[in-house]
Amino acid sequence: MERAMFFLDQKDMPTKWYNIQPDLPKPLPPVLHPGTKKPVTGADLAPIFPMGLIMQEVSQERFIEIPEEVQAIYRTWRPTALHRAYRLEKALDTPAKIFYKYEGTSAAGSHKLNTAVAQAYYNKQEGVKRLCTETGAGQWGSALAMGCQFFDIELQVYMVKTSYESKPYRRVLMETWGAKVTPSPSPNTKAGRDILAKDPNCPGSLGIAISEAIEHAVTHKDTKYSLGSVLNHVLLHQTIVGEETRKQMEMAGVYPDIIVGCIGGGSNFAGMFLPFIRDKISGKKKDLRIVAVEPQAAPSLTRGPYAYDFGDVAGMTPLLKMFTLGHTFVPSPIHAGGLRYHGKAPIICHLYNLGLIEAKAEYQIPVFEAAVKFARTEGIISAPETAHCVKVAIDEALACRESGKSKTILIAHSGHGHFDLAAYDEYLCGKMKDYELPEEKLKEALALLPQV
Amino acid sequence: MERAMFFLDQKDMPTKWYNIQPDLPKPLPPVLHPGTKKPVTGADLAPIFPMGLIMQEVSQERFIEIPEEVQAIYRTWRPTALHRAYRLEKALDTPAKIFYKYEGTSAAGSHKLNTAVAQAYYNKQEGVKRLCTETGAGQWGSALAMGCQFFDIELQVYMVKTSYESKPYRRVLMETWGAKVTPSPSPNTKAGRDILAKDPNCPGSLGIAISEAIEHAVTHKDTKYSLGSVLNHVLLHQTIVGEETRKQMEMAGVYPDIIVGCIGGGSNFAGMFLPFIRDKISGKKKDLRIVAVEPQAAPSLTRGPYAYDFGDVAGMTPLLKMFTLGHTFVPSPIHAGGLRYHGKAPIICHLYNLGLIEAKAEYQIPVFEAAVKFARTEGIISAPETAHCVKVAIDEALACRESGKSKTILIAHSGHGHFDLAAYDEYLCGKMKDYELPEEKLKEALALLPQV
Repeated sequence: MERAMFFLDQKDMPTKWYNIQPDLPKPLPPVLHPGTKKPVTGADLAPIFPMGLIMQEVSQERFIEIPEEVQAIYRTWRPTALHRAYRLEKALDTPAKIFYKYEGTSAAGSHKLNTAVAQAYYNKQEGVKRLCTETGAGQWGSALAMGCQFFDIELQVYMVKTSYESKPYRRVLMETWGAKVTPSPSPNTKAGRDILAKDPNCPGSLGIAISEAIEHAVTHKDTKYSLGSVLNHVLLHQTIVGEETRKQMEMAGVYPDIIVGCIGGGSNFAGMFLPFIRDKISGKKKDLRIVAVEPQAAPSLTRGPYAYDFGDVAGMTPLLKMFTLGHTFVPSPIHAGGLRYHGKAPIICHLYNLGLIEAKAEYQIPVFEAAVKFARTEGIISAPETAHCVKVAIDEALACRESGKSKTILIAHSGHGHFDLAAYDEYLCGKMKDYELPEEKLKEALALLPQV
Repeated sequence: MERAMFFLDQKDMPTKWYNIQPDLPKPLPPVLHPGTKKPVTGADLAPIFPMGLIMQEVSQERFIEIPEEVQAIYRTWRPTALHRAYRLEKALDTPAKIFYKYEGTSAAGSHKLNTAVAQAYYNKQEGVKRLCTETGAGQWGSALAMGCQFFDIELQVYMVKTSYESKPYRRVLMETWGAKVTPSPSPNTKAGRDILAKDPNCPGSLGIAISEAIEHAVTHKDTKYSLGSVLNHVLLHQTIVGEETRKQMEMAGVYPDIIVGCIGGGSNFAGMFLPFIRDKISGKKKDLRIVAVEPQAAPSLTRGPYAYDFGDVAGMTPLLKMFTLGHTFVPSPIHAGGLRYHGKAPIICHLYNLGLIEAKAEYQIPVFEAAVKFARTEGIISAPETAHCVKVAIDEALACRESGKSKTILIAHSGHGHFDLAAYDEYLCGKMKDYELPEEKLKEALALLPQV
């Protein structure tokens, strides 16, 4: 009997998040105030985030205790299983060992819940009664709805209007978990009203929804804003994934040679690789390869410059040093909505700039080809985002077949694609399109980078 | 730290299915040939089922070894976790301990995969190259698609045309796992052609789809038919659920006082309770209560007679002794499509007739109220079918609050409702309807019971 799943008993669940900051070879570049262009202070961020999260954003403590109240909720679905993909290996006829850590068994269907629960907790601790956030396809909104429900916090979600109309099930999920969902742009906010005055039929965008959510937080009592990726504290909360995986790989008697993950903002992948990269930084595992997979439609690591830029389209957030396509860049409408972001988490960009991680960009048709192969061997329907790194894992496994080397490949499998079957249908019917990103379009967006 | 999930290591996964037949206080009534009204023989069934399954149907062996090939596939998602519903208990302020065994983490999303994999295996063993089956909402069809994919068997699914058109995502799931899906009635079969000739716009029914699937199996070489519930061998394969749960309840240091499960055909619930009912039959656990929950729209146990009836609407199958509403009975269009069946598994009916299990019938509005409470405490979006027994578990827990007794309640949680969010939306918007079953309608259907 060979184990295909490795379960970690709840008594062995990690009780601390791992903070990479004290272990970085060089410190992170500072985050700048959008007006003064000087490093932001905690006071600058206090109107929108609770102090507990602001402190985590800049903490130099290596391990941060997970509050027992958060652990108790993690225990409703964690530790998630680590799988050995025997059937995929066999189908590929590869000597590689393929493992995947599957976050799709959380009720919200992805890794997003790991930080949603933590953020709801720290807000609750400081008496916050309401949170607001934006959501595109609805992954983050539904995870935060559930997180808020657990701590009895009201949630207002601004959902991009086209998604609100075309993806009603994600809205129903959020409502089932008690959130109030408003299509954006909305008449609730000045930002929304201004846009509606110009164009009553505006389909909305993530940038507009962020503006509405931040304005809502700033103008309402006991209300804060919450973000589902990019920031240091979000990546921190996700490290529960990698910390569990370390223990499970040990149970399996292996250590990864290659870790692959998809990146939009980057929190999912960082949650997996940060607990491993410390072995690479310390020199214990110099040869460990860490491969971030982005879409060809939004190739910030592979084609963008490393520059200060806004986190949102409207240019309201602090300036973050990122590999970026420019905050005004609008990616083509690929199905992996969670990867359609112009930048990446500053921690990931810093590590990439230091040469500690690699990046690859993939087109969606071969990505779905890989996803269908994965579904037909391992059973699981991967989210379109996740499918990007499944593609690269398969490529690496095929390279092992060529070279005859048996490498251990670890996939950060961030979630299921139960709400993305229209994309699978498009692929199976042969109607899926790939998108080139013309150099000209990229240049135009980069011309609008802020001057720092 | 209190465990909220109990994981069973794969080396401790049960390696045998439990067969209740040798432990029944009285043997099952025979299955009758629809023509001769004499007990059916293996030869009668051989054109549609492989001999391996026919043998299991009548086996008197108490434990049947799960073939290693089937176990290896079970290990892609099993053992499933047993959860302690701490958060639901707290919300109900009950001294009861509530546990649920959650089958929704299989890639197919429900318990159905347990038998799909086994059936595909036994067919493969006997050289069967193609299976065909029917599906209504698509739960069974998608599970069997995945099962067949694992054993490289082609699958033809006849999907009720209204569902084919209104639930495209379930169709895409089946296609992603490699099945061919045809809306029924279809021009593929004589049964389908006859119906289309009379009514080209016929929306189809499960009864018609069964007829098409059976005809397809009988008229094609190397092709057999597969059924997802009701039959003894299907219930047998599901006992992996209860066998795992026995071990996990032991890990938790408890034994159930009450087991609740929803029943359509009944295989999900039987899979859970059969491994426990042997303790009741043997006298070791005389007080164990086993409560089957059916919808008020299809209340065969609570309102039907115990009589011989056909398994399908067209009257082509052998005659089974069941609590039945009559094979021509058409239940109201409740959302729990999996519970819209006129009869129940003969094993369950036999045990109910012997007074060893209880039954309750529930309306769908209070059922969804319970489902939303469950989602807001435990996170999980239950399938509408499963929500029926969640309702009864909550009632029992509230009764404990009244009586002050701390009972241990075990829920057979058969799957998630990710493809049923339209039903949640209807409930949350206050647009859901409940359906009475008038005595008159029932009488009419019962008048058409076959004469035996």
